[in-house]
Amino acid sequence: MNVSTSSGWERAPLSPPYLLFLGDITEPAFAKTAFGMRDWIPECCVGEWGCPESTVSTGLPRMTPSQARAQGARALVIGVANVGGLIAERWVPLLIEALEAGLDLISGMHAKLSDVPQLKAAAGTHGRRLIDVRTPPKNIPIATGARRRGKRLLTVGTDCAIGKKYTALALARAFTQRGLATDFRATGQTGILIAGGGMPMDAVVADFEAGAAEILSPDAAPGHWDVIEGQGSLFHPAYAAVSLGLLHGSQPDVIVICHDPQRTHLLGNTHFSLPSIADTIDLTIRLGLRTNAAIRCAGISLNTSHLEAEAAHELLRRHSADLGVPAADPMRAGPEFDALVESCLK
Amino acid sequence: MNVSTSSGWERAPLSPPYLLFLGDITEPAFAKTAFGMRDWIPECCVGEWGCPESTVSTGLPRMTPSQARAQGARALVIGVANVGGLIAERWVPLLIEALEAGLDLISGMHAKLSDVPQLKAAAGTHGRRLIDVRTPPKNIPIATGARRRGKRLLTVGTDCAIGKKYTALALARAFTQRGLATDFRATGQTGILIAGGGMPMDAVVADFEAGAAEILSPDAAPGHWDVIEGQGSLFHPAYAAVSLGLLHGSQPDVIVICHDPQRTHLLGNTHFSLPSIADTIDLTIRLGLRTNAAIRCAGISLNTSHLEAEAAHELLRRHSADLGVPAADPMRAGPEFDALVESCLK
Repeated sequence: MNVSTSSGWERAPLSPPYLLFLGDITEPAFAKTAFGMRDWIPECCVGEWGCPESTVSTGLPRMTPSQARAQGARALVIGVANVGGLIAERWVPLLIEALEAGLDLISGMHAKLSDVPQLKAAAGTHGRRLIDVRTPPKNIPIATGARRRGKRLLTVGTDCAIGKKYTALALARAFTQRGLATDFRATGQTGILIAGGGMPMDAVVADFEAGAAEILSPDAAPGHWDVIEGQGSLFHPAYAAVSLGLLHGSQPDVIVICHDPQRTHLLGNTHFSLPSIADTIDLTIRLGLRTNAAIRCAGISLNTSHLEAEAAHELLRRHSADLGVPAADPMRAGPEFDALVESCLK
Repeated sequence: MNVSTSSGWERAPLSPPYLLFLGDITEPAFAKTAFGMRDWIPECCVGEWGCPESTVSTGLPRMTPSQARAQGARALVIGVANVGGLIAERWVPLLIEALEAGLDLISGMHAKLSDVPQLKAAAGTHGRRLIDVRTPPKNIPIATGARRRGKRLLTVGTDCAIGKKYTALALARAFTQRGLATDFRATGQTGILIAGGGMPMDAVVADFEAGAAEILSPDAAPGHWDVIEGQGSLFHPAYAAVSLGLLHGSQPDVIVICHDPQRTHLLGNTHFSLPSIADTIDLTIRLGLRTNAAIRCAGISLNTSHLEAEAAHELLRRHSADLGVPAADPMRAGPEFDALVESCLK
């Protein structure tokens, strides 16, 4: 994984390798931090751990904090993202056990580790660190909307947790492999943990949302690409504000729409049907035109993990024909993904 | 002004009457807090004060903090809103003079009074309070998008500082005068200072933006109206995130578009032309449909303060004919405003 970052913000240095903590979740979609770290920085992941009632697994060996410490782990990372980003009370005894075993704690939740008195006390007692990566930098400016040099690509979703981060990482890797100067720009907890830097867009105060996106992808050389991880969805009744601020501030030249053909309703909110890909393209272009008159949709990224290869290719062919742009699953290398990359770069 | 609030959030009690502080501004548009308080709660405004270089006046008598204290003032309110919401260094000696004179300080800026060490020290020395009204409540929930009972009206602007608050206050007053159970829901510093409560939408963390709007206008009796002060503009490169979160969370039945026919470009950002009213209606309806399938535009609110009465009526007539909905200046009572109110309520 040749992803470079040059965000310029100082963060507490992380302490890999990690033990991934799965909490008490039973829904794999909420473990995207753990899955993302397993998939993109496997060399930093020693194993997994969780409450006894957790039924989700990353496939990594399950082990206690003491066992992980013995295998070299230096921190426990909270690898789940529940609704609201809260640290559950039932997790606290397990997190204390990790501190006692000599691990730092790293979290990307909205709630801060250091706001939990028992964790703060135990970290002090055992000389361990509590690191919250979802803390935005101070003094984010108000967005100006001024055009910046360099090229920008933003992944855009029909929903949350639908492939925006994986697509951005895969495209950034492909751009880099083609010799292009490329930065992956992380906008969420998992991306930040993978890349070692970025902007936690959903934790920024709303007035500064677009400004945060502007400093995330600063003025750059004309041939340079920022590949920016999308957040939320413009159609999401809770998170659309994040998506619009990121879109305006990113001023992307290229968008790639990320979609899961199996999903019919918003994740965790069945009162809302998923928007169509065509509607998502149309609305994103309409809104994005405000800060970049040249914005265009270069293609579609589909999650086809539920399909055999031939069925996946057929699905991609159909979407490409219907929408008039390349469609690919970035987890499947091949001519479809190459066509998507070409479309982004043309 | 018969505006009631029932927000339910506990705030530090304010301490009227006030001395309005104008800082060092020379652009009247940045004094909207001072103007709003003068216009809607004149009984609470003793006078104005500012740096010598400030050229803006509310028309209230200019006086020092000592003079204001002698006339009964109990607090100095920072009545300006500069870009970024910062407390300028050159203001600090004057703010300390107010504390020395026996006044509390009240601010709606993003920056917190209590974060300025000299102010904190002086407030301690003189036994005065520092009150920041732009501090959102704790534990705002993630929005659900679930439909709530009661009727909601949201004012929507083609730009910032273009009449959304005045229009909402005027409509709330008109609804109340017609005997309808009505709450004005403040979403910005000035509205909160006028109403004594509300939600500082631009200071909420982006992930919770729509959730904040949901708790601002809770489930209500079927005939009850919440008249919600709009924020920013969906076309503003810095603030559109605030506007979209507020729109989704407010789930308005009715929108009223606020516009200033003299303004050709965004306030303070001449690189961006103002959107047309028709585009603003269309985009707001398109986005608002996501949380309320019955959303409709009831009319237009135009600032005609630069025109004589006959020219204003002609401008309103033309806008109404062009757009097919009533157009009124809420600062001019008469049949046009009555038609706008009727259109909202029908």
